[in-house]
Amino acid sequence: MNITQPTLLIDSSKVRMNIRNMKQKADRHHVLLRPHFKTHQNLEVAEIFRKEGIEKITVSSITMAKQMAEAGWTDITVAFPFNMREIEDLNQFNPAIHINLLVDSMLQVRFLNKHLRQNHVVFIEIDTGYHRTGLQVNDPEIAGMLLEIASSTVLQMGGFLTHAGQTYQARGKNETLEIMEESREQLVRLKQRFQRYHPGFILSYGDTPSCSMSEDFRDFDEIRPGNFVYYDVMQYHLGACSLSEIAVVVACPVVSVMKTRSEMAIYGGAVHLSKEYIAADDGFKLFGYVVRLNQAFGWTETIPGAYVYQLSQEHGLIKMPEKELALFQPGDLAGILPIHSCLTANLLKNKTVLL
Amino acid sequence: MNITQPTLLIDSSKVRMNIRNMKQKADRHHVLLRPHFKTHQNLEVAEIFRKEGIEKITVSSITMAKQMAEAGWTDITVAFPFNMREIEDLNQFNPAIHINLLVDSMLQVRFLNKHLRQNHVVFIEIDTGYHRTGLQVNDPEIAGMLLEIASSTVLQMGGFLTHAGQTYQARGKNETLEIMEESREQLVRLKQRFQRYHPGFILSYGDTPSCSMSEDFRDFDEIRPGNFVYYDVMQYHLGACSLSEIAVVVACPVVSVMKTRSEMAIYGGAVHLSKEYIAADDGFKLFGYVVRLNQAFGWTETIPGAYVYQLSQEHGLIKMPEKELALFQPGDLAGILPIHSCLTANLLKNKTVLL
Repeated sequence: MNITQPTLLIDSSKVRMNIRNMKQKADRHHVLLRPHFKTHQNLEVAEIFRKEGIEKITVSSITMAKQMAEAGWTDITVAFPFNMREIEDLNQFNPAIHINLLVDSMLQVRFLNKHLRQNHVVFIEIDTGYHRTGLQVNDPEIAGMLLEIASSTVLQMGGFLTHAGQTYQARGKNETLEIMEESREQLVRLKQRFQRYHPGFILSYGDTPSCSMSEDFRDFDEIRPGNFVYYDVMQYHLGACSLSEIAVVVACPVVSVMKTRSEMAIYGGAVHLSKEYIAADDGFKLFGYVVRLNQAFGWTETIPGAYVYQLSQEHGLIKMPEKELALFQPGDLAGILPIHSCLTANLLKNKTVLL
Repeated sequence: MNITQPTLLIDSSKVRMNIRNMKQKADRHHVLLRPHFKTHQNLEVAEIFRKEGIEKITVSSITMAKQMAEAGWTDITVAFPFNMREIEDLNQFNPAIHINLLVDSMLQVRFLNKHLRQNHVVFIEIDTGYHRTGLQVNDPEIAGMLLEIASSTVLQMGGFLTHAGQTYQARGKNETLEIMEESREQLVRLKQRFQRYHPGFILSYGDTPSCSMSEDFRDFDEIRPGNFVYYDVMQYHLGACSLSEIAVVVACPVVSVMKTRSEMAIYGGAVHLSKEYIAADDGFKLFGYVVRLNQAFGWTETIPGAYVYQLSQEHGLIKMPEKELALFQPGDLAGILPIHSCLTANLLKNKTVLL
């Protein structure tokens, strides 16, 4: 294999292990693992999920749902507030595919009631503290939406769904688990309040950090982590994975070595890695760790003291201790562990090698 | 036209005006405008450049050079340190296409001498203060490289090239023009030192902020701004353009309106806009300004007090004054002026409408 451009290398055995660990955890706790496929958007990786026993999945757009439906997935939750402008695309799905929708307003429910040409399950999104989308647990609109859904001929109440994305701001495991606990309490309150009028709905909980750290999934019926399939430097910093569990690396050609600055430049920039970074207190920005690639494109531990510290459109700049830098010259490949694998995998969708 | 997903709208008359202004400025100052096509990577926009009299262009990768060569462009500078791993791709170009290469080490020159199967012009990249790639003006390697190029049967010295990207950190016009002045002085020193031994080479200067602000291009033979074709919020903040000169907007479906928070959520996230932002002193991050779109997809002035302040993979969150927010509901479109149009245009390459 001749790598000439920035390329996402996927270690399939790490992927399999990450999936297996999460699946075993879900089985142990009797919750359904409905993994989020937005991280990889990759049909080969999807097949690894299938072999590990996954049948139901999550995506974040109608477009992704379409791709996965074409690849044979038949139970797909679109965990994004339903975009009314895509009603025609939704109506064109094969009715044999179960598309579960997410709503967070009465307006959407009424719109679906009016325009849907086939039956769908809907989940009501609850904002348990992330403050992105979703209704507050005590929002009076919820009861009205439930009634509207109950009287609908095309909609069926699936349950309450939350993404506790605030775990990405948590400092450490305890804070992460507290966030999970707060989310649980809120969802449970909804269940207690509404289940006797609308029996049979479920509670669906998301996010990789807490699903990776927790061993307490009581009250949840399904979990929807996504990033865990690859993990990344951000998850490592959050304490959700070890560095060796990170299953992807971006192979980047070295194009320039600046010995006087103890730096090198790679072909690998914002259009390959994304501009996501981790900020240090002193203003330093970390855009990725650096590893050495072997002949088989496996990779080493991270090189101590080596960091991607700046990205422009196509260039990446790496600081590296002198004696490590001496081992690189233009024409070599360097491996970059990405900060946020979802964004990197999206950018390199068409430049991917499954190892 | 029915916009259902995040879509890059390009205002062709603004594009034409931006090109015309820069071309007229270049003509006035007797420098060649060799615009950087990395910003748009769009064949329709490329045709507007052609109609405005542009024949020679800049790109940032061999891949882009290939695309533009296929679209009929015959004089292309790849303003990225030559990536030795792409030598085969380079050798496959039609010899009728002039591909100018960039080098910043003797290693690359020797490699090209050995492996090139056709003639190419090379530029030596000079680091005049940006500290990304390129040689320092006083680097002894430059003289050796010039000799190596002079004695080569396949290489011809094109000139010295710099990208003064540090203008993106400048505070105001004076600082920007000072940076340009420092770059000029360094390039001129090289010209004075080497032109009698290696006559005929040129000085090539880049970056949109200084080319937009300056009226002094003496000593330069060509300029390579790119971003000016679209401009963006970053250029506006730098003082390089007005808001009304920004030629692109991302049309995003509104999916959720949170009145209690005076916010709304759009389908439009990091995979559409990129995570580039402008930081305010108080820690606030600006990911884009908001405009209203009219029936013909033209757009208004920015809505006062409305900002994209958070992006996740597919979601964008907008803060907006109550009375402005009252005019939006799920299913509407909002327009986002991007922070960094190069990255946004790259992400939405396949979701573009030229108006």
